[in-house]
Amino acid sequence: MKGLFISIEGPDGSGKSTQIENIRNFFADKNIEIVFTREPGGTPIGERIREIILDNSFKEMDYMTEAMLYAASRAQHVAQIIRPALEAGKVVVCDRFVDSSIAYQGYGRHLGEAVEVINSYAVKECMPDVTFLLKVDPNVGKTRIKANRETEDRLEHEKMAFHREVFEGYLELEKQYPGRIVGIDASMGIEEIRDEIYRKLEEIIK
Amino acid sequence: MKGLFISIEGPDGSGKSTQIENIRNFFADKNIEIVFTREPGGTPIGERIREIILDNSFKEMDYMTEAMLYAASRAQHVAQIIRPALEAGKVVVCDRFVDSSIAYQGYGRHLGEAVEVINSYAVKECMPDVTFLLKVDPNVGKTRIKANRETEDRLEHEKMAFHREVFEGYLELEKQYPGRIVGIDASMGIEEIRDEIYRKLEEIIK
Repeated sequence: MKGLFISIEGPDGSGKSTQIENIRNFFADKNIEIVFTREPGGTPIGERIREIILDNSFKEMDYMTEAMLYAASRAQHVAQIIRPALEAGKVVVCDRFVDSSIAYQGYGRHLGEAVEVINSYAVKECMPDVTFLLKVDPNVGKTRIKANRETEDRLEHEKMAFHREVFEGYLELEKQYPGRIVGIDASMGIEEIRDEIYRKLEEIIK
Repeated sequence: MKGLFISIEGPDGSGKSTQIENIRNFFADKNIEIVFTREPGGTPIGERIREIILDNSFKEMDYMTEAMLYAASRAQHVAQIIRPALEAGKVVVCDRFVDSSIAYQGYGRHLGEAVEVINSYAVKECMPDVTFLLKVDPNVGKTRIKANRETEDRLEHEKMAFHREVFEGYLELEKQYPGRIVGIDASMGIEEIRDEIYRKLEEIIK
């Protein structure tokens, strides 16, 4: 594939949205068109799946059901948006991708390798060229979210232990894929984080 | 698990509904309460997933997305309905189960073993004790359709090839799981089929 596939990962409250905006500006400044997309969702089918996942009334949802809904949404997202864009040589920037599922469902929900196997069928080797992982201690992240929101969705209701396991999952992935995942200390200032991302992006596109 | 898990499988037009009614009568006559359920669906979450699967406007749906949505619905169905009922010692009768996915998605859509792997995570070894497979040759169905149509277009040809592959998938499963799957020649009369099912059920519950 000719394009460039970038994903951005990290716990809620890691400053992901701010850095996504910075990534968009990076390419805008260079007049490089990007396809920006997000998970779960990204397609009409994915949005419908997303509604089910985030529906607060479905408290009975089995963790495996949840993981499979994320994977279903992702399969559609890859087939309909990401793969065609990459094949057309475009830059794709995706807010969360497979690593989120492995961290949240595989580690956080203790579903283990099932999540990796299922997602390997969803993406069919269409993986990011680079993944920026914003690492923030779960205690810090949780405090930031609370300051910004009045209501929390079902996932955000989960206990601290869950967020800690998610974070450990991310760190595990960082170790496992050092060539793809660029871990960034998200306790740094916004500009420092931005500069680190920009350095890496310059390196990739040159 | 103490209960009894029965599934019924076969292409549309194989007389499945009639025989499900017979199975219900079999247990009603013996004053044995059954939990009757169907796929896709069976739970509120499953019904929401079913709406997406059957939404005619989603013509862009990737086959893998479809297979994962079926598996997500099934994971919920097993966790919320089937496993608890079996653990309570009940008889569960399910209209379509894993074999449908393998036949329709694995064989019909050529997704191969991915469908088996994904579904193994969805059911977590909660498999039917007995599966009645109503076998009707796709050509028989075709002849029936032809009586109602004058022309046959390309789509009809494709449909035929698809149904043939689904049927071959079912036959393959029958060979693979001779201890679980009871194949029945659905070209027989309704009463003959019923008698064969009743004989097997008597054998199981005695």
